[in-house]
Amino acid sequence: MNKGRLFILSGPSGSGKDTILNEFLKDNKDIKLSMSTVSRPMRKDETQDSKYHHVSKEEFLNLLNKNEFLEYNEYLGNYYGTPKTPVLNAINNGIDMIVEIDVNGAGNIRKSFPDAISVFIVPPSLKTLKERLIGRGTETEEQIEKRLNKAFDEISRANEFDYIICNDDLKKAVNDLNSIIKSNRLKYERQIELLERVQKTC
Amino acid sequence: MNKGRLFILSGPSGSGKDTILNEFLKDNKDIKLSMSTVSRPMRKDETQDSKYHHVSKEEFLNLLNKNEFLEYNEYLGNYYGTPKTPVLNAINNGIDMIVEIDVNGAGNIRKSFPDAISVFIVPPSLKTLKERLIGRGTETEEQIEKRLNKAFDEISRANEFDYIICNDDLKKAVNDLNSIIKSNRLKYERQIELLERVQKTC
Repeated sequence: MNKGRLFILSGPSGSGKDTILNEFLKDNKDIKLSMSTVSRPMRKDETQDSKYHHVSKEEFLNLLNKNEFLEYNEYLGNYYGTPKTPVLNAINNGIDMIVEIDVNGAGNIRKSFPDAISVFIVPPSLKTLKERLIGRGTETEEQIEKRLNKAFDEISRANEFDYIICNDDLKKAVNDLNSIIKSNRLKYERQIELLERVQKTC
Repeated sequence: MNKGRLFILSGPSGSGKDTILNEFLKDNKDIKLSMSTVSRPMRKDETQDSKYHHVSKEEFLNLLNKNEFLEYNEYLGNYYGTPKTPVLNAINNGIDMIVEIDVNGAGNIRKSFPDAISVFIVPPSLKTLKERLIGRGTETEEQIEKRLNKAFDEISRANEFDYIICNDDLKKAVNDLNSIIKSNRLKYERQIELLERVQKTC
């Protein structure tokens, strides 16, 4: 059976990767979203079937010990990780999987999973990014300045990625992601079964 | 400036590569079709601006001598070649180029131009191909049998290609070709200028 692939979607905070992914997943049921495992209690508005799988810190460290994460990270006392088994299961069953993650996490996944195809979302300009962050109205001027500097540094790491999508138009960006994933499925190594079928029907 | 790319479109006779390419080109004016140079006189229904550029045999051999072809071929006393200079000019100006060619020709272009991205069109089955060839009504049973054997052998060479498109539905096949070419433009190495622009606009 042809194997599936792991796609990594990344980009600076405010680049719109979350919106692009949600729009993309609406029309593409043939790809699975990788959930994150997190060592913090559920919030009231969360359920186990949302983007996070909640476990206790003890459980997380136990999984980590068993090498069950493609990457993990500690942030403000909580652990976040990308579980390995669901990705391997999907891929071995010919199903594509996609994970949304920050630039550091993307680098770590690539180390443990070099076959992953990685996509980097950039805002059309840092000026636009600044306006978007101001528009959110959730951060101080100082925090925004910090985020912009971080975005600049992250964009300097775009060369670590296979594909770059500019999010100047949501619909176009979603189409771009679609082209990347669709074209990957047309690669020779993913079409061997088809070729065998074609030749068999003499 | 970001460079363009050369795309090769190939496949067995009757796979529908010609129709796919014509449909694709209707909606995509940002890619140039590579013309073939042929050492035979123009037919009455041909003009110099169609798919072939007609030259005398002497001119052809002169161009060949100057290493002006990416590949060439002799068939029934006439020479056919894919000129090199228009491809290099387009690519150096950031323009994508596409050439439609048989499987042998595709292999020869790949040798002289390893950066080319090659796409192979297959019919959904050899049975369908047989029906299409019969439907054309231009060949004897023996000729059709010969073509089918050739198609079988050519499909065995699909592993020389980067991408495989199954032509079971014309619209889908055109979309597939579109995804391959579009996604290639999103590769990191073709987005460096964009990234520089994004970072400049602090």
